[in-house]
Amino acid sequence: MFEQVEAAPPAPSVKDSPAGTEHHRTCRLDINKPQHVLYVVGTSLDVSIYRSAPPSSKSFSVKCTPQVKYSISPPTPETSHQSQIPLNRNTSLLISMDRASEFENESKLSVRYYNEDRYAVGLAVLHLTAVEISLDVDADRDGIVEENNPNKGSWKWGPSGYGAILLVNCDSESKFCKNEDYNSKQEFIFNLSDLKDMSPMKLRTRGPSRLPKGYKLMMHICLGDSEKIRVFGSKSGNKQVNNAENSSSVKDYPVVLGPEVLSQEVPYPGGNAEMDFHVEGLDFPDKDFDGLVTINLSLLKPISDAVPETPIFTDKVMFRVAPWIMTPNTLQPEEVFVCRTSDNQPFLKEIKDLVTKSGYKLKICEPFMNRGDRWIQDELEFGFVDSPHHQFPVVLDSPRDGELKNFPCKVLLGPDFGYVTREPQSDEVSTMDSFGNLEVSPPVTVNGKKYPLGRIIIGVAFPTAKNGRNMTKVVQDFLWAQRVQKPIALFSDWLVVGHVDEFMTFVPAPDRKGFRLLLASPDAAYKLFKDLKNNGHGQARMFDGFPKERQITVEEILGDRVLLNHNNYVQSCIDWNRDVLKKELGLDDDDIIDLPILFKLEKKNDGRVVAFYPDMVNMIVLGKNLGIPKPFGPKVNGRCALETEMCSLMGGLGLNCTFIDDYYSYHKNLGEVHCGSNVRRKPFRFQWWNMEL
Amino acid sequence: MFEQVEAAPPAPSVKDSPAGTEHHRTCRLDINKPQHVLYVVGTSLDVSIYRSAPPSSKSFSVKCTPQVKYSISPPTPETSHQSQIPLNRNTSLLISMDRASEFENESKLSVRYYNEDRYAVGLAVLHLTAVEISLDVDADRDGIVEENNPNKGSWKWGPSGYGAILLVNCDSESKFCKNEDYNSKQEFIFNLSDLKDMSPMKLRTRGPSRLPKGYKLMMHICLGDSEKIRVFGSKSGNKQVNNAENSSSVKDYPVVLGPEVLSQEVPYPGGNAEMDFHVEGLDFPDKDFDGLVTINLSLLKPISDAVPETPIFTDKVMFRVAPWIMTPNTLQPEEVFVCRTSDNQPFLKEIKDLVTKSGYKLKICEPFMNRGDRWIQDELEFGFVDSPHHQFPVVLDSPRDGELKNFPCKVLLGPDFGYVTREPQSDEVSTMDSFGNLEVSPPVTVNGKKYPLGRIIIGVAFPTAKNGRNMTKVVQDFLWAQRVQKPIALFSDWLVVGHVDEFMTFVPAPDRKGFRLLLASPDAAYKLFKDLKNNGHGQARMFDGFPKERQITVEEILGDRVLLNHNNYVQSCIDWNRDVLKKELGLDDDDIIDLPILFKLEKKNDGRVVAFYPDMVNMIVLGKNLGIPKPFGPKVNGRCALETEMCSLMGGLGLNCTFIDDYYSYHKNLGEVHCGSNVRRKPFRFQWWNMEL
Repeated sequence: MFEQVEAAPPAPSVKDSPAGTEHHRTCRLDINKPQHVLYVVGTSLDVSIYRSAPPSSKSFSVKCTPQVKYSISPPTPETSHQSQIPLNRNTSLLISMDRASEFENESKLSVRYYNEDRYAVGLAVLHLTAVEISLDVDADRDGIVEENNPNKGSWKWGPSGYGAILLVNCDSESKFCKNEDYNSKQEFIFNLSDLKDMSPMKLRTRGPSRLPKGYKLMMHICLGDSEKIRVFGSKSGNKQVNNAENSSSVKDYPVVLGPEVLSQEVPYPGGNAEMDFHVEGLDFPDKDFDGLVTINLSLLKPISDAVPETPIFTDKVMFRVAPWIMTPNTLQPEEVFVCRTSDNQPFLKEIKDLVTKSGYKLKICEPFMNRGDRWIQDELEFGFVDSPHHQFPVVLDSPRDGELKNFPCKVLLGPDFGYVTREPQSDEVSTMDSFGNLEVSPPVTVNGKKYPLGRIIIGVAFPTAKNGRNMTKVVQDFLWAQRVQKPIALFSDWLVVGHVDEFMTFVPAPDRKGFRLLLASPDAAYKLFKDLKNNGHGQARMFDGFPKERQITVEEILGDRVLLNHNNYVQSCIDWNRDVLKKELGLDDDDIIDLPILFKLEKKNDGRVVAFYPDMVNMIVLGKNLGIPKPFGPKVNGRCALETEMCSLMGGLGLNCTFIDDYYSYHKNLGEVHCGSNVRRKPFRFQWWNMEL
Repeated sequence: MFEQVEAAPPAPSVKDSPAGTEHHRTCRLDINKPQHVLYVVGTSLDVSIYRSAPPSSKSFSVKCTPQVKYSISPPTPETSHQSQIPLNRNTSLLISMDRASEFENESKLSVRYYNEDRYAVGLAVLHLTAVEISLDVDADRDGIVEENNPNKGSWKWGPSGYGAILLVNCDSESKFCKNEDYNSKQEFIFNLSDLKDMSPMKLRTRGPSRLPKGYKLMMHICLGDSEKIRVFGSKSGNKQVNNAENSSSVKDYPVVLGPEVLSQEVPYPGGNAEMDFHVEGLDFPDKDFDGLVTINLSLLKPISDAVPETPIFTDKVMFRVAPWIMTPNTLQPEEVFVCRTSDNQPFLKEIKDLVTKSGYKLKICEPFMNRGDRWIQDELEFGFVDSPHHQFPVVLDSPRDGELKNFPCKVLLGPDFGYVTREPQSDEVSTMDSFGNLEVSPPVTVNGKKYPLGRIIIGVAFPTAKNGRNMTKVVQDFLWAQRVQKPIALFSDWLVVGHVDEFMTFVPAPDRKGFRLLLASPDAAYKLFKDLKNNGHGQARMFDGFPKERQITVEEILGDRVLLNHNNYVQSCIDWNRDVLKKELGLDDDDIIDLPILFKLEKKNDGRVVAFYPDMVNMIVLGKNLGIPKPFGPKVNGRCALETEMCSLMGGLGLNCTFIDDYYSYHKNLGEVHCGSNVRRKPFRFQWWNMEL
């Protein structure tokens, strides 16, 4: 059934239907009465001459009207219509017709049987009506529903691939009653504007104005697929969607198939006509769902009142549900989100200045919505879905569910803004489930393998660790199942908060691979502090201007053997991740920049680690402007040496550093600028279906 | 992680561990104290010269003992050990060693730093200890655990494929307390004889007799895999399994990993030594399980008492759990199973004569076990599992669960006889779940695609049918997930009993594809009856010798228009399946033989259908001997014309027909010979891992 699908799933969801479309149909002759056969153009009828032969027959001849073509198997020497052909057990006729009939029983084929003495002993007649039937989709992915694409029933990745695409209709056409559209269980389409989120599908027919008596068309899906899609019909028939919006009501778009309806009769449009359908996805790919769904259209033949119809022709189309895709720091921002809290007014102002200067929109989540929860990075991840016909942003809501938990569905979900979440069944949510622990790299090529949408990065524990904390399985399953940004698991459980954004980020670069990986580096910090001491700044103080007890000199830092030991450990943890990232993203050392950052170990937190001073790698990246946690490092000639180093490192890439004071409002709460902000970015121009998977 | 795995699953089960084995390890220099580094042969150490350079250094030189090899990146002009190389931000050393050290700190490398004036300003020393560590399996599938196969961490199908194989340990070493061995949850192996069902795995090391202080080896699996495998250690160390059986107790084989233990320290064997492990599978591939499991071995480095160890090297091996494989009629029988009931003594005798004559074993399931349930075909399906090290039969127990339900686990399950079942969660079991509705074709090639183990065949309803009956989803999922006998779904719901074995079977043939597909054919029956009438036998009676009311003449049959209509419908149902089988098995008409069988429609059964006289296609195939339901057809010259026709059709293939009277004992209960028997056959010689999937 899926032979042509690349990378077929190991255990495809059960297709509760008999196997594949048949292009050869066994068809019977009867010498007692003429047979009326409905023929579908593109198939062939396989007729056993022997089966219906009268007992005494030894040879036969065939005659037909001009539209009918036939061949005899096994092949016989060149014969005219009138010549008698010897009959044997395996003799069969293969019948086909090139185009649809204009009226019922337009064509005819007859077989005459002869006995030993070459006298006619029987005549079997077939009256033939030919129809063309095609269930059509945009299998070539150009936004237009072409006619009878030969690959429409299967799906292949890549620029030379094929197979139609479906969006999960997870936005909400209603601004007031927020609910994903696909969840609005109804008999009809929810709103005419919802049509644009759906994939077009057409039933095209040619032939007589009506099907012969008793024949009917059934559209059907298997049980497994029925939870994944819904098909709406279109009572307006030939009308285009654009026109329909002007003149139609939702009642013109009734549900044809879906979770409650696995099969339904659809009208035969008749003559040279077509009928519009609209298909929506109900769920994203996941562990149990490879994203592929099939819609079948069967032509049923009546037998008698007592017995059910049998299908004589089945056409099918395959869709893949579009994956949820994340957007790396190298994509252009569209909106920046931060929370207003009782204590972050100065921080808000600095962020606002940066965002305004950079030319982007700032959206502030107010206290009534955030209820004091400032970690908007952790509550949600922005992404998008894409298809040849439509594209919109989709927020992935974290199972973290802090006080911000209503923000994604109450504020973000809306017209053309989708929503998806994955909730673990038990209460196994930990800090690892916050989306500061979910990042994505820019596009990379690794040993020739292209990741044009980058790779997702999450943080977990080593499997050998006792009491290790991990991102919950349902979210990991979801991320892996999207396939187009194959995830990398890093080791982040050594941190108290445990998020990958505490030790790494990506910034755009004009050269090499178009970006740099920034890594926190205690070694780089010690090197800088040693340089300071060597240059006579050993008495310079960190946290200068803060209360005395916070301040500490460069020499005191360098002299603290315990701090050094702990930072050696931190460096080895980050180095482990550095090695993984180099391998999995195909990076060289020159693609990586070490940032001078120190950490400290918290005995009370199982020996896990927090940043010693504001963690500069936890920055917000807005094009060429970086919003970096102000580190309050030792001053040299009145200027913070850590800021100087950052500006020097980033300046080489043409990036501008803005240092934002998040000390009391975020850093002391174990987060920084990145944890306290979120950025919705422009989607990739690269279309995911063009990946070679 | 699975880049080399062919046909990687769309959503691999979450691997709760950081990504892949790292062959490059970032390593730190320290000018303040010598560093002691444990090096694993086959990896390389990546050392940043710059990171640890004293502040004033401008150049450096490198010196090392003979075992150590290094290169400088970016490459410098040809230099001797003593020459000073300019230092810049990206300068790094790549260090490797060819073989294991004999003692700790055997090798050494030092980096000397120089200032602008070329005076030495610092010296960083690395003391190196090299070890070889390899977790080994039979990745080349020859039954022997080779050393460090480069492909051991991945899995590929085909004759040029690689990757180790695991059996589900689903037999029962105990004859008395019947329980699949993998279900005997214990701290140790259940029985020494159980070792042969397990895949061997070895930990091989070379190096000093002990690891440096604080280092340790951990074996670990991810959460998803932990439900699928169990690993046993071997306290006897180097001993071979064969010897072990003589001298060991089960306590020498403790559980190392499994559902309750995701990671465990394993001893470093020391020096040039190896340690044996034994791995069992706990579950067959299924919808949620692609059959692949990975076992990791990590070398952990101590940091300090306060902080956890970090892994510096991970080796991994991948297994695929062997699928459950069915055996077609063309394979040689080993045992024939039938039930004894109060009313089937004559039938039993005829079957016994046939089986004995054919040279096979007959096993009779006695009334205390079958409690009157004679349908042993329906309760279970025989299959087998195969690996390079071992092979045994496995019975798939149907969820049907009639009175025979205890037979598979109480009688069949035993030493070297495995058991597996799939039970639906709700009570959705129907007649379609009986395994007369589960068959398998002989090996076929379809449009160039080879199915060297044939294809599974099941019967379902059309999705367009109202009140359609289907095989339960969990069994379908299981069958599809085995992958090596890709199933075909036929349309069998038109039958009252609904089983594919009511209208089709396969028999061996000396020519063409090595077999013929036999199909029930009302057309063939009508043709035969017409021939009889034409030849003057119109008054010959079916069921001759039975009570008068059962008897019916050839002419009466031919004259019954209702019967004809219903059989036309049956023929169109079978023709639909014929078309599917031709396409999905790559058959020609010459590969198919139509058997003269009539059906009748039962209005009381929703217009479904039963055989009009004993259904000859429902036969038992024992090599060249066929046990066929005696049809009691019209007699010509004292001989049943249906038997004559069968003998003629089968005789051409060199097959012998034995007609068995099952009329009252089976046929009147809506089954025949095949439904009432079962055959365990020799496994395929073809090894499933050599399939190209």
